Amino acid sequence: MPIAALRAPLPDPATDIADAVRARIDGLAKPPGSLAALETLAVRLAAAQGRSTPVADRARVVVFAGDHGVAREESVSPYPPEVTASMVRTFAAGRAAVAVLARQAGAELEVVDVGVAGLTGLPPGTDGVRVVGARVAEGTANLAAGPAMTPAQRDEALQAGAAAADRAAADGVQVLALGEMGIGNTTPATAITCRLLGRPAEELTGPGTGLDGAGVSHKARVIQRALDRTDVTGPLDVLAELGGFELVALVGCMLQAAHHRIPVVLDGFIVGASALAAVRLDPRLRPYLVAATRSAEPGHAAILAAVDAGEPLLDLGLRLGEASGAALALPLLRSACAIVEGMATLDDVLSGRI
Amino acid sequence: MPIAALRAPLPDPATDIADAVRARIDGLAKPPGSLAALETLAVRLAAAQGRSTPVADRARVVVFAGDHGVAREESVSPYPPEVTASMVRTFAAGRAAVAVLARQAGAELEVVDVGVAGLTGLPPGTDGVRVVGARVAEGTANLAAGPAMTPAQRDEALQAGAAAADRAAADGVQVLALGEMGIGNTTPATAITCRLLGRPAEELTGPGTGLDGAGVSHKARVIQRALDRTDVTGPLDVLAELGGFELVALVGCMLQAAHHRIPVVLDGFIVGASALAAVRLDPRLRPYLVAATRSAEPGHAAILAAVDAGEPLLDLGLRLGEASGAALALPLLRSACAIVEGMATLDDVLSGRI
Repeated sequence: MPIAALRAPLPDPATDIADAVRARIDGLAKPPGSLAALETLAVRLAAAQGRSTPVADRARVVVFAGDHGVAREESVSPYPPEVTASMVRTFAAGRAAVAVLARQAGAELEVVDVGVAGLTGLPPGTDGVRVVGARVAEGTANLAAGPAMTPAQRDEALQAGAAAADRAAADGVQVLALGEMGIGNTTPATAITCRLLGRPAEELTGPGTGLDGAGVSHKARVIQRALDRTDVTGPLDVLAELGGFELVALVGCMLQAAHHRIPVVLDGFIVGASALAAVRLDPRLRPYLVAATRSAEPGHAAILAAVDAGEPLLDLGLRLGEASGAALALPLLRSACAIVEGMATLDDVLSGRI
Repeated sequence: MPIAALRAPLPDPATDIADAVRARIDGLAKPPGSLAALETLAVRLAAAQGRSTPVADRARVVVFAGDHGVAREESVSPYPPEVTASMVRTFAAGRAAVAVLARQAGAELEVVDVGVAGLTGLPPGTDGVRVVGARVAEGTANLAAGPAMTPAQRDEALQAGAAAADRAAADGVQVLALGEMGIGNTTPATAITCRLLGRPAEELTGPGTGLDGAGVSHKARVIQRALDRTDVTGPLDVLAELGGFELVALVGCMLQAAHHRIPVVLDGFIVGASALAAVRLDPRLRPYLVAATRSAEPGHAAILAAVDAGEPLLDLGLRLGEASGAALALPLLRSACAIVEGMATLDDVLSGRI
């Protein structure tokens, strides 16, 4: 196993505490179950954190960014690969969607360059944004033609992700919202999902940020070439053969966050593909995951069923990535925590103590 | 027409400003349309407010509370009517679900007693909660046996709702989130919806806060008795015959808020029934409404289609009322506003100006 996060078994969720929180919620001043998904969320956070009063005040959004050989060589995105670097600069300037949404949610934003091509130096972060350099290479190799990365590069990306979780734990972060930036990265995400779920490319390939029908067909053929090229099925091998640096870093970050008992809010399809690989590496990761948003990508529903991260909290039709959905879901986590702590019990109300 | 809000025609939404905001959003640094429902929401708020930078920072949650003769006499709820007064005290103490959720959303909470039975005096508000007395009567009459209220009582309730909108406007409130409290009030809400949409009670009657199958059947028979008792179809007549004080106050509040160009966030089924009546009184109300949450009550889908308040922002299975869903949606309104103002344009990014 390449990193410590993969060696040690993940802690079990605190089911005793979860049961106590469920009982407390059932006794609050409202019809039982009437806050529905918010109640389930509070119980899930309590189990993950091992706290009878779950907390989500200190939240950090982490966006891993990387480039992709397959985008450079196979035209799988309507946007040129240079946009990845441009967007990292826009994150740093606090003016990308996720920067605006994280600020609005009162969350910090950390951008981790794990493999952005053509980014000279690291842009200084402004306005609550931190940029971290952990570049494994200037983008991956073309996964349709050969392995996307070497095993050593994969391990380096896993480590970069785990390091982000360690920083969060050291800073007292209570929940992590994870996202990604990388032009073309629905292609590796779809390839990973197809391989781990045993599905053909044409079933799970979608338009990403905006391909037309012909573009989707072309992308599905590129992904199928990659799937036909290699028959690995172990999650670590799949990540090296079909992954992207940001996708691999997300895996390391999720697993290490669970070691720290920090719940992880998953953005859409691409983060979902990483969650799928991470859950294959250690199924005990599941209770630490919270699905923020339902993606329009055809592979996402299958991922959600496989990773068991709960029903997505939001279904707004988002198809941006960047952790935009995860950032938008943060107030719901805080609200779930607040009801556990702030509400009167039904006994208080009926007995006239209020 | 009983109140000023019903006499004057509502202002048209600012379609020119909405078009400009749509164009601005299309030029932001993201794939066109990728923020989906958040973009639609920003445009809707801009049109309602007549502002090219829509705002939702100053938000107020208003909960109208009243009791129901039909709950006293016909057993249509698993909870006794006394719970309405108890819950108003719990709101005032800042310890009901909506009080917690409003606080978490950074919104003020105003509770308006328009007809709570057995509430001696007004509980003092604490912790950002204001309690306003505007009691029309100690609950309505039993709508299954006769008119729920007199036309004069209806007009008084409409006026109480309009006054809440006037207070909000005077205080500089930018968005209103509306809710209700009243044991048994899915019964008048269902009756109003059935009459205005021409549907029989058995089609639209649901479990409310927790009736079992036999309870739902009984409730449907009670509602059908009310529908069979009177053949009025005009919305003002329907409100007096089949309404509740809090339902009528909501109608007055929505219409008056639109006069002030304050967008109104609708909680679930009961507030939806009021929105349906309000839209019948003036269809120009529609663009001022924002649907917060999808209710499990069977009548809600038909209401949503009729009032055209957009796809609900949340679908969390909530069935509490109180404005809990509307309060939970407020951060999404703020986020929609923030993207319009805070994001770089695609031109900025591609030209290297960032």
